[in-house]
Amino acid sequence: MPEKGMLIVLSGPSGVGKGTVRKALFKEPDVDFKYSISMTTRKPRKGEKNGSDYFFVSKEQFEQNIREGKMLEYAKYVDNYYGTPLNYVQKTLNAGHDVFLEIEVNGAMQVRANCPGAVFVFLTPPSLDVLKNRLITRGTDKMDVINKRIKKSVQEIGMMRNYDYAVLNDRVGNAVNNIKNIVKCERLRVNRVMPKYLSMLGDKDHVN
Amino acid sequence: MPEKGMLIVLSGPSGVGKGTVRKALFKEPDVDFKYSISMTTRKPRKGEKNGSDYFFVSKEQFEQNIREGKMLEYAKYVDNYYGTPLNYVQKTLNAGHDVFLEIEVNGAMQVRANCPGAVFVFLTPPSLDVLKNRLITRGTDKMDVINKRIKKSVQEIGMMRNYDYAVLNDRVGNAVNNIKNIVKCERLRVNRVMPKYLSMLGDKDHVN
Repeated sequence: MPEKGMLIVLSGPSGVGKGTVRKALFKEPDVDFKYSISMTTRKPRKGEKNGSDYFFVSKEQFEQNIREGKMLEYAKYVDNYYGTPLNYVQKTLNAGHDVFLEIEVNGAMQVRANCPGAVFVFLTPPSLDVLKNRLITRGTDKMDVINKRIKKSVQEIGMMRNYDYAVLNDRVGNAVNNIKNIVKCERLRVNRVMPKYLSMLGDKDHVN
Repeated sequence: MPEKGMLIVLSGPSGVGKGTVRKALFKEPDVDFKYSISMTTRKPRKGEKNGSDYFFVSKEQFEQNIREGKMLEYAKYVDNYYGTPLNYVQKTLNAGHDVFLEIEVNGAMQVRANCPGAVFVFLTPPSLDVLKNRLITRGTDKMDVINKRIKKSVQEIGMMRNYDYAVLNDRVGNAVNNIKNIVKCERLRVNRVMPKYLSMLGDKDHVN
């Protein structure tokens, strides 16, 4: 049996740039984990390909998948379903590869409940930095604008609680490097490498 | 009050090369954490400087420090005391800097008990790799040699359990890079950055 892979979940508030970061990440030559393509019932946009951008399926097909327990996570936005097919993730992890999901916050919480060993990365909006600067040079903005920003930021930061890492999306390149580093470091975690070492030694015992 | 720094502990079995890795690490130009110099009662070796390699003190002084609660951790090896003065660590963490300790496994367990937020890195001997290769090309070594290695490796791996990360000391450069990456990633952990974000927003509330 090959050793099981690691599940990496990238999520964050709507509009933070998850898709942009994920696309940049998978253009890197040294990325050795697999991207799990999401499934959706929305129509393909111009240039989008089935099996590359999304798996495009009918509403009936998606709902049947849900009933049959074939989705790792899913959610409905604006009358369309979006979700992660369970089969690819399971198969790939069992083959010893690490799997990367880029999903919405609701879906991430479903994965959190089902996959205790997964790594959760929260992409934080660059507006936190903007906000910080605003606070420093305060008085330049109208109070209601500042208050709106703060309210939104407080909500977004609250969502961070259920994640392992917070990566600021100030520049896509920085976010990509931080995510790559997080995967590297998680591979050094004792609870991940210990079984490997133990089974290595265990194997030896059998030939004594 | 400046935000508190992070405590990083490097340890591992005797002879694994902790000192070599630590020295190489602190030669790196981008290392921005502080090394906590150990205190010892052993005599300085040729070329060793007080306050640089160790703080060299008398047995009486060291025992007084222990009695007065001035040591973060300490142990006795071959009639000499070795330990970490608490004052420097506390002062530096409170000033918002990260502090790096390179200590023996017994000391690391004392720190683990006292500093729940610290990061523990276990340096694993390259012999684990050697062992792996031996297992693959088995039959080239005498059985008692193999068995001795395995016994030692099992003991060493057992110690790993109480650490967060396992870094293989196959090449000093690799180990150094991995440790640097671990520190970078730990700085992105939600439980470390959340208070910073919250206090940033909290500050703003005061001026509303």
